[in-house]
Amino acid sequence: MAADRRGKAATLALRRRLLSSSCRLFFPEDPIKIVRGQGQYMYDEQGAEYIDCINNVAHVGHCHPLVVQAAHEQNQVLNTNSRYLHDNIVDYAQRLSETLPEKLCVFYFLNSGSEANDLALRLARQYTGHWDVVVLDHAYHGHLSSLIDISPYKFRGLDGQKEWVHVAPLPDTYRGPYREDHPNPAVAYASEVKRVVSSVQEKGRKIAAFFAESLPSVGGQIIPPAGYFPEVAEHVRRAGGVFVADEIQVGFGRVGKHFWAFQLQGEDFVPDIVTMGKSIGNGHPVACVATTQAVARAFEATGVEYFNTFGGSPVSCAVGLAVLDVLEKEQLQAHAACVGSFLMELLGQQKAKHPIIGDIRGVGLFVGVDLIKDKATRTPATEEADYLVSRLKENYILLSTDGPGRNVLKFKPPMCFSLDNAQHVVAKLDAILTDMEEKMRSCETLRLQPEAALLSPPLEKMKHSTQIHYWDDGHDLQLTEEESH
Amino acid sequence: MAADRRGKAATLALRRRLLSSSCRLFFPEDPIKIVRGQGQYMYDEQGAEYIDCINNVAHVGHCHPLVVQAAHEQNQVLNTNSRYLHDNIVDYAQRLSETLPEKLCVFYFLNSGSEANDLALRLARQYTGHWDVVVLDHAYHGHLSSLIDISPYKFRGLDGQKEWVHVAPLPDTYRGPYREDHPNPAVAYASEVKRVVSSVQEKGRKIAAFFAESLPSVGGQIIPPAGYFPEVAEHVRRAGGVFVADEIQVGFGRVGKHFWAFQLQGEDFVPDIVTMGKSIGNGHPVACVATTQAVARAFEATGVEYFNTFGGSPVSCAVGLAVLDVLEKEQLQAHAACVGSFLMELLGQQKAKHPIIGDIRGVGLFVGVDLIKDKATRTPATEEADYLVSRLKENYILLSTDGPGRNVLKFKPPMCFSLDNAQHVVAKLDAILTDMEEKMRSCETLRLQPEAALLSPPLEKMKHSTQIHYWDDGHDLQLTEEESH
Repeated sequence: MAADRRGKAATLALRRRLLSSSCRLFFPEDPIKIVRGQGQYMYDEQGAEYIDCINNVAHVGHCHPLVVQAAHEQNQVLNTNSRYLHDNIVDYAQRLSETLPEKLCVFYFLNSGSEANDLALRLARQYTGHWDVVVLDHAYHGHLSSLIDISPYKFRGLDGQKEWVHVAPLPDTYRGPYREDHPNPAVAYASEVKRVVSSVQEKGRKIAAFFAESLPSVGGQIIPPAGYFPEVAEHVRRAGGVFVADEIQVGFGRVGKHFWAFQLQGEDFVPDIVTMGKSIGNGHPVACVATTQAVARAFEATGVEYFNTFGGSPVSCAVGLAVLDVLEKEQLQAHAACVGSFLMELLGQQKAKHPIIGDIRGVGLFVGVDLIKDKATRTPATEEADYLVSRLKENYILLSTDGPGRNVLKFKPPMCFSLDNAQHVVAKLDAILTDMEEKMRSCETLRLQPEAALLSPPLEKMKHSTQIHYWDDGHDLQLTEEESH
Repeated sequence: MAADRRGKAATLALRRRLLSSSCRLFFPEDPIKIVRGQGQYMYDEQGAEYIDCINNVAHVGHCHPLVVQAAHEQNQVLNTNSRYLHDNIVDYAQRLSETLPEKLCVFYFLNSGSEANDLALRLARQYTGHWDVVVLDHAYHGHLSSLIDISPYKFRGLDGQKEWVHVAPLPDTYRGPYREDHPNPAVAYASEVKRVVSSVQEKGRKIAAFFAESLPSVGGQIIPPAGYFPEVAEHVRRAGGVFVADEIQVGFGRVGKHFWAFQLQGEDFVPDIVTMGKSIGNGHPVACVATTQAVARAFEATGVEYFNTFGGSPVSCAVGLAVLDVLEKEQLQAHAACVGSFLMELLGQQKAKHPIIGDIRGVGLFVGVDLIKDKATRTPATEEADYLVSRLKENYILLSTDGPGRNVLKFKPPMCFSLDNAQHVVAKLDAILTDMEEKMRSCETLRLQPEAALLSPPLEKMKHSTQIHYWDDGHDLQLTEEESH
């Protein structure tokens, strides 16, 4: 397969002609053509090496040879549906079960995190006999119709909120109603869910499920206070609902201390349903739903089959098994803990130095840097974050932003991201921030708005370029779903 | 990868423990453990060779070496999301566009037929600003919440019909209201859709889309009369809706005469949206939605991004391209036409010989054999079909049934299915039918119900075995979704 069959401009022109512009590119004003990936690096058609700080799908590293080999070996032998007996699917379910609390012992295999969340919704409704769903504000759970309905991040731009969807505040201790100075933000935020549940019940409606990413990502790399999930689960279960932990972006050892991010919420906490995707197959379309016997039985009792053509195929499961093998063999969970701590430490030093850094939060290789215009108001530094990401790209570092204010730099790199990578990226961040500050100071001297400093290249180029502009139809751009399911 | 790491009973036991019984096995009373696939053959753990007459996913043959190689080459180099420029995605879109009418020129890539139909629904609603959907009776369009809603085959077993879903009769000229003796069944069945559309409008509701498989499969291997789709499209478009052709099971040359099954409906007929899955990646999770500029533009105008994590990855597209290459190189479309005609001819001879065969219908390698108890009533020979499939399995032939009466034998084998395979399978079918007829005659002599003949082994074993019975919870088994999305 020739890595670069045509020039970048020609590829872009074809893309503009044949794909919908709803399918967006990173850096649309000057997109990158990537032709190769290895470990935590991606390479463009000129051979330039980029450090990938954001691709949590390439979990054990781009093109990991053991994963690639496992796919190839199985592809040569058999790739069919799960209506025939095969060892891979049962081996894989068994291996996954070993990572989970004992209660989560029934598995369904699918192709994407979105398919997994849709099934979770069906399971929850069938088991509870209820229909309504409580979600966290700014949440994103997938691109399917049913999931846009439960994703405030999405539905606010579209048809709006359905009457069966209820939104609880994001347990964000930096920007939410209960902050770092609150004596017990876990209980306070959980009480908000209780309040939502009660008001739903008062309307005569019934809760089927509470859905949350174990660490809300699109919401701005949020770390819910420990103890929040168990409290929420209590309120939700009391109303007859189930707790769905969406681990699609954050599972599989990323948080370092634990294999699953929901385990950060307390050793004893067990969701009723866990959904997995993205990292599970290192890029191969694999996803999984794990649930309890009770939930599975209720679904079985309908007598209706669940069949997923590609889900649980020998190849998908071989790939999934290989990812687990590599995680273990290369001790990537411990590695994530170690590199993540180091990264947090380095970023902490930057926070002391650069007032634009309002908050640093993270666990393992899931880290957010919340950029603010002002310490008192915590106003999101949206343009600055945008500018920073663009400057980092020029320095061959792929980083992006999340959060409702698009001001939170997010780190969720392949798990092989190294101490050196952390040092290098933070050094570049430091240099760019220092440069930004200098520019802003000179603007202030000239009595210009400080943001004007950012309108010098490359930001100006970015805002006004028409040369290679992917969207030329003039419509408003909404939030970019930087890393959605 | 050891092909068989444990005995069949051990695999089954693990499966019963770890997977939901909603995920069904073929031949649940004595499931097959398949460890290898090649071309149109599958092999069990003992090395027994089965002829695969049903797997339309392994489109160019199980484990086709060129497809496997393409996946491996690309897997080694890069497998990432479509937010970076890459040649594979544009090459693939271009190649697909060459197979379609010019108007269908915008492409979205996804992981499964279900994801494709869900997106089609979103596109249709956004474009039309309407909500309601007309579907054909017994249709199945996927396992997602939104698609169960538009699948009478599914929703009748679950929550029932939503108020925005409207069902038109299946254009089945063998069992429907307008049959082979009707002067113009295409117009008559299309008038039924017109009637549905009018009654929807009378209620003040508005049609977003008409969804149909170009050849309804689960409905019983139905060949809609030519001219039906263009008529329907006219009625639907007049009401402001769009026509969605679901080619997930039947596209990519299967029908022989054409590359797409909707093209059987008339050279000039162009759907507004075409969905593809299953065969598109020969088992790799790939799917696609093709639509018009107008529909794509309306979706873009929302400003909301469509992002699918794995959809359109360099690997998915490399696999998709390889499937197209093989189809071309091995002239499998022409092959399907030739083998399909031969198969129809052989089956036609059987029809003359065995009164249980009520109807033979098909085009290319999409063939149905409708089994009946009685020529006058056309009562579905459900038990007989079940028995036949079970006997064929003992003869190492994998065939299954479809249709609301589960009495239609369905052929939709890998496209490399040969003349010899056709001859062999039909010879076995003949022998089993002859044997069944003899048994029934002796029952009649003994004044027993003819069906009692089928209760001799192996049917008896099948009905009453408790030895390896996968479902032991006693609930009713519903229709099996033999080949769903």
